[in-house]
Amino acid sequence: MKRKVGIFLIGAYGNVATCVVAGTAAIVRGLTDRTGLVTETPVCEGLPLADLPQFVFGGWDVRDGSIAASASDFGERNGLLTPELTKKISRELKRADAEVRPGLLVNATPAVVAMAGAASRKKEKLAAGFKRLQADLRSFRDRHRLDDVIVVNLASTESMPPSDVPALRSLSHFRKAVAKDESEGLPASVVYAVAALDLSFPFIDFTPSVAAGSAPAREAAALRGVPCMGRDGKTGETLLKTVLAPMFVARHLPVMSWVGFNVLGNRDGEVLRQSGALASKVRDKDEALRRILKSDTTHSQVRIDYVPSLEDWKQAYDLVHFKGFLGARMQLHFIWQGCDSALAAPLVIDLVRMTDLARRRGERGTLPWLAPFFKTPIDCDVQDFAAQMMLFAQWCDEARGFGGDGV
Amino acid sequence: MKRKVGIFLIGAYGNVATCVVAGTAAIVRGLTDRTGLVTETPVCEGLPLADLPQFVFGGWDVRDGSIAASASDFGERNGLLTPELTKKISRELKRADAEVRPGLLVNATPAVVAMAGAASRKKEKLAAGFKRLQADLRSFRDRHRLDDVIVVNLASTESMPPSDVPALRSLSHFRKAVAKDESEGLPASVVYAVAALDLSFPFIDFTPSVAAGSAPAREAAALRGVPCMGRDGKTGETLLKTVLAPMFVARHLPVMSWVGFNVLGNRDGEVLRQSGALASKVRDKDEALRRILKSDTTHSQVRIDYVPSLEDWKQAYDLVHFKGFLGARMQLHFIWQGCDSALAAPLVIDLVRMTDLARRRGERGTLPWLAPFFKTPIDCDVQDFAAQMMLFAQWCDEARGFGGDGV
Amino acid sequence: MKRKVGIFLIGAYGNVATCVVAGTAAIVRGLTDRTGLVTETPVCEGLPLADLPQFVFGGWDVRDGSIAASASDFGERNGLLTPELTKKISRELKRADAEVRPGLLVNATPAVVAMAGAASRKKEKLAAGFKRLQADLRSFRDRHRLDDVIVVNLASTESMPPSDVPALRSLSHFRKAVAKDESEGLPASVVYAVAALDLSFPFIDFTPSVAAGSAPAREAAALRGVPCMGRDGKTGETLLKTVLAPMFVARHLPVMSWVGFNVLGNRDGEVLRQSGALASKVRDKDEALRRILKSDTTHSQVRIDYVPSLEDWKQAYDLVHFKGFLGARMQLHFIWQGCDSALAAPLVIDLVRMTDLARRRGERGTLPWLAPFFKTPIDCDVQDFAAQMMLFAQWCDEARGFGGDGV
Amino acid sequence: MKRKVGIFLIGAYGNVATCVVAGTAAIVRGLTDRTGLVTETPVCEGLPLADLPQFVFGGWDVRDGSIAASASDFGERNGLLTPELTKKISRELKRADAEVRPGLLVNATPAVVAMAGAASRKKEKLAAGFKRLQADLRSFRDRHRLDDVIVVNLASTESMPPSDVPALRSLSHFRKAVAKDESEGLPASVVYAVAALDLSFPFIDFTPSVAAGSAPAREAAALRGVPCMGRDGKTGETLLKTVLAPMFVARHLPVMSWVGFNVLGNRDGEVLRQSGALASKVRDKDEALRRILKSDTTHSQVRIDYVPSLEDWKQAYDLVHFKGFLGARMQLHFIWQGCDSALAAPLVIDLVRMTDLARRRGERGTLPWLAPFFKTPIDCDVQDFAAQMMLFAQWCDEARGFGGDGV
Repeated sequence: MKRKVGIFLIGAYGNVATCVVAGTAAIVRGLTDRTGLVTETPVCEGLPLADLPQFVFGGWDVRDGSIAASASDFGERNGLLTPELTKKISRELKRADAEVRPGLLVNATPAVVAMAGAASRKKEKLAAGFKRLQADLRSFRDRHRLDDVIVVNLASTESMPPSDVPALRSLSHFRKAVAKDESEGLPASVVYAVAALDLSFPFIDFTPSVAAGSAPAREAAALRGVPCMGRDGKTGETLLKTVLAPMFVARHLPVMSWVGFNVLGNRDGEVLRQSGALASKVRDKDEALRRILKSDTTHSQVRIDYVPSLEDWKQAYDLVHFKGFLGARMQLHFIWQGCDSALAAPLVIDLVRMTDLARRRGERGTLPWLAPFFKTPIDCDVQDFAAQMMLFAQWCDEARGFGGDGV
Repeated sequence: MKRKVGIFLIGAYGNVATCVVAGTAAIVRGLTDRTGLVTETPVCEGLPLADLPQFVFGGWDVRDGSIAASASDFGERNGLLTPELTKKISRELKRADAEVRPGLLVNATPAVVAMAGAASRKKEKLAAGFKRLQADLRSFRDRHRLDDVIVVNLASTESMPPSDVPALRSLSHFRKAVAKDESEGLPASVVYAVAALDLSFPFIDFTPSVAAGSAPAREAAALRGVPCMGRDGKTGETLLKTVLAPMFVARHLPVMSWVGFNVLGNRDGEVLRQSGALASKVRDKDEALRRILKSDTTHSQVRIDYVPSLEDWKQAYDLVHFKGFLGARMQLHFIWQGCDSALAAPLVIDLVRMTDLARRRGERGTLPWLAPFFKTPIDCDVQDFAAQMMLFAQWCDEARGFGGDGV
Repeated sequence: MKRKVGIFLIGAYGNVATCVVAGTAAIVRGLTDRTGLVTETPVCEGLPLADLPQFVFGGWDVRDGSIAASASDFGERNGLLTPELTKKISRELKRADAEVRPGLLVNATPAVVAMAGAASRKKEKLAAGFKRLQADLRSFRDRHRLDDVIVVNLASTESMPPSDVPALRSLSHFRKAVAKDESEGLPASVVYAVAALDLSFPFIDFTPSVAAGSAPAREAAALRGVPCMGRDGKTGETLLKTVLAPMFVARHLPVMSWVGFNVLGNRDGEVLRQSGALASKVRDKDEALRRILKSDTTHSQVRIDYVPSLEDWKQAYDLVHFKGFLGARMQLHFIWQGCDSALAAPLVIDLVRMTDLARRRGERGTLPWLAPFFKTPIDCDVQDFAAQMMLFAQWCDEARGFGGDGV
Repeated sequence: MKRKVGIFLIGAYGNVATCVVAGTAAIVRGLTDRTGLVTETPVCEGLPLADLPQFVFGGWDVRDGSIAASASDFGERNGLLTPELTKKISRELKRADAEVRPGLLVNATPAVVAMAGAASRKKEKLAAGFKRLQADLRSFRDRHRLDDVIVVNLASTESMPPSDVPALRSLSHFRKAVAKDESEGLPASVVYAVAALDLSFPFIDFTPSVAAGSAPAREAAALRGVPCMGRDGKTGETLLKTVLAPMFVARHLPVMSWVGFNVLGNRDGEVLRQSGALASKVRDKDEALRRILKSDTTHSQVRIDYVPSLEDWKQAYDLVHFKGFLGARMQLHFIWQGCDSALAAPLVIDLVRMTDLARRRGERGTLPWLAPFFKTPIDCDVQDFAAQMMLFAQWCDEARGFGGDGV
């Protein structure tokens, strides 16, 4: 019998999660094709990956709502999830909705708190919350007789935690803090991550949160021998940066300035207006550029602005000012117009399929070969997208032979 | 004693050649740095390359004029070769000017004929022209006691030759055509190439001409055991295409349309207005894209228009219309503003240095590892720029150990 | 009782016509608002205009098909005419479809011939065709008891007629040519125009055809005392040109080059690939610029390319290269992403409403104050959009007082 | 004998002032043409304007330096003021330099303080400073026997003053504050303005400072019967906004979002990094848009970022997201690449010539017909550039007949 793999999404009512669930259903029903899935390109050919019908969805969200409602709302404003499509997959959406549980409201940004529903707002001690999350995961696994559950963080960007939060020092510090209800500075994402890893469930962070790279998560992953990877899905402007910047390096054309202006209109944009959250996002975006250019003199800057009318569209304008032979000063401009969720959702499905395979192969801890999927791949210094794809392809080559337990 | 290497430039009074000569002089005199030279990046570190002071310049041009005059004219309109700079290197410019000989006016486009000077217009049989070119090269080598001469084609884009020109069938066909003065359909570039290769001088084609890949040139290179490579320097829009297109492939985002609009203002632009010449340029530009995308459904198009006010600036606007998950339709636009000669000149210097090293290493025929430098690298199927850079880096790794005859 | 005005659309199954009919119905039913209608802005406030429920639609098309089918096809690919919307206005679409008659296939471009249906392909002498068109219009008026019928040309761009077509010399020449079946060089648009005007029905040309400005049409309009205006709706790139170019003139910033690259994906684009049709389109686009800049030295150029994936979207990239104080060379770039039919359709409704009012006010011949709606407004030298809007506003001021026969 | 008019520039060593002085000299010597001067276009034809040779330059600056040094520095980095040009006008530059006096360092931003020279840093009471400025102006007029002196503010953007600064309430409050040395919150620009106006010298504010519109300046202008106008020269992005926004209004295409990203590299950019100064700049830029669109629902935003490598170039990327018929959502993007000083300098010369004429015609107080030159024209509600040009043209028509005292 085929494996059954649970996918538990943090931020289950968000646009990306909605597109993951709806898109998977639409593919399984043959209503759309597999465009956008890296796992369906030649580089992944022959890998013993779990296929889309083997996935069962659930998740957490701090808001009241439903994936079905998000899909319908999204469809009205976006054109991707048309009413016709949504209707045809309504059973799958409902099934996933039945598996969504209240999220954890710890140190949330004011924008997130404002959106939160009654269930998530209920006063709760950290220890109780931690237990509740684990109970949700266990129940999900048991009721669906899942071979594994993979937890993916798709929640809104968190604020950067302060520089020295005791609970983040080690797994034991974390456990103490939870026990004593010392939540100060502790990001909710870390609680989710440890809750999952501690149960031997892999954890993937598609947001810029610190969770996957934090000491407690790393230790829990090592202890339980499961994968834990992040962070921040590379879907648009940063992807282009990591594709284009190596060209300037290769051609010995020093970049004097690289300034990027991002505009986006969805809930993510609203949350990002909170400067704390913005800082963590911007840091990740710029990091990649700095590492590739290896230059101290490049003036780089990233702006992210909320432009409500764009809704789920994420656009960017980047100006690259560079120097050439004989001091020539030249420019490259690009304008990117991406549908954020449509870019992110297939990568989430890819990450789950690849993580599931890595888990079966016995990999534990971070998975640096997943670098091309992340803005800031943990434990990987390679930022150049083409070089990251080579790491990824090498892993695929090794894994291709792998038989292991049947998919 | 150090090697002395001659660089003989076809189109010596053109902007690119002028920047090659002036830029080399400026670097040698410490008036500018080595920005733009790939041979000065880490990938080439430790290679036993000839250094810039070892180069001696000469060349051919069908026009009357001088490199010094081009430099001064260029400086007025462009700002790169300022009067101050030109003054300081006037001795070097004059020295190179003393080595420029009349070019060959065979099957030239009307625009080139219109520019040609009296010396080049003089009636001359093919055989006489061929001998004259070889005499020019021999004299250049002998008078300067050069260890080698590398001929680089920087002339204006030629028209595509008709599909079956007897002289292009083989080296012996070529020789017969020259002997019988059957010039019909024979591109001047092929005559230059065979003239050089036949004397065991390497030949590099930085233009889209058929020369380097033609049967006569290939046979001559094989016979004499020298390198012969092309074609069409990859400096701007095509470079970006070969950097960006692999991203769409890697991410499984099918490109529905990729349309590029190039505008440029220099003599090259004037010549390109001739549709025959334009066709060969456009073919090369599109080829790379088609090969990378491996797609029959992509609508691709390249336009090259002459906009005189842009002078030496080459700008491009590209629109990429692509599809994503759930049928999302997205766009990437880029605008490139490059100073054409400043982008091309350092690559010419790089190519000469690398070819000189390859020659000393005993390489003969085409040099496919030079792929990242060309729009249509001969004998190389790899179009993805990052993959081309890997081929190049591999060669460098192998060559690094090479001692051979001292530089 | 309120006036009833017939709108007879040439090219009734096209995207623009479909949006005119569907959009009017949607507004009348309160399913969408009046965004995009100039006649609903303050400049037109208080004018005794016929309102949308007073319009009755009919038309001609050389293709087989229906407005309903076009709406549904358009909706699938565009998102404007959603299935929900189309369903709610299906009765209006059917009603209009019942009034569409076979078009006239005279000197059509091969692309149009290829699309034509059996009814339009039937052999027919010119005189018979002319009579048929007039019979269609009379029957439409009589059956619906219309106070007036306004004919609007929305057909695909025609090829420019040769320079001296006898039938275009005068109305009597035209009549003779029709009688003798001498169709050579006679554009179908002129036959439509004279057929309408001869019956005292106003004629508006929203395409670049020569119809509205031709001698036969002018004479017929004068003879019957009815309005006749054109040509070529100003919806996108040209609109921007006529808005931006005056700024450069006002600021004494000479434009050295203005190059525009248009890409579009609909049927219009397919037809425009035929170079004859393209020439007439491009001529109109450039004319406006030349007149505003009053410059002989500006290098201007317009490209229109067919990019199927864009469907009904019309995009343009324009580069303006201009000179300033102390010889500074500067650039303005713009990228326009317009939904062609959504931009054109409300202007068609505006033109009909304004022409109807002009007719009631007794205006005859060309209506130069409608200049802001056209790329090449007949009998109007003013190209500057702001200045055109002033002419239009002045007319509105005069007309505001007008009572005339009740609307 | 011809009038002699002094132009006294606040911020005399800045790029704009340098280009004003150098450009005037270059034109007078016939080294460059009058491109960029509005006063040399047909709209101003026949006006009895003072010509460029009639101007004598002087000014204030808080920095040590010289116009000659700025010109040479500017030339190296920009290409406009080439060494050849600067050399040929060195006498004029020196002559102007001899008339530059230490500026006033009152409530300057830290960036300006950091640049200030010893002379300007010297402790000085407000009253002494005020007297010093007036003495500078009188001495300048007397020594050069000038018919008039026009003071133009070209200094770096000041911080917005707090909301209730007593000294800004009225001219008498201002005088009291000066007498009592109560400088708190008093912008230096106001001191300059009143110093000039109080001596019956017209004052023009080309910066976003509050000076020209402040109560003390207005009262002084009224009292002395001289012109006083501002504010903030309209040279780039805002110019485009006031040209493009009316098009959207005219076509009934509601703008949902208009976001603008400005990048610039000169000293102005450095000063603008100080958020206080930035706020006043951004406010002026947005004001125009809001007034034209008359919309509460438009999301508008302006960013100004300092990108040092751009030096004197000011670039902007603007995204306009608008709605059309049937709810279509469309976009316009523009990229502006302007040489800031080359755009500003001719407008400064225009303003001086026009103000001089207005003064001779007896105009006093604000000059709202100069609206097209300013981002926020004082006492003028018209923001639409074309409409502003009409006001300007009307004034010119009236003034054309004016003989007055000979030029």
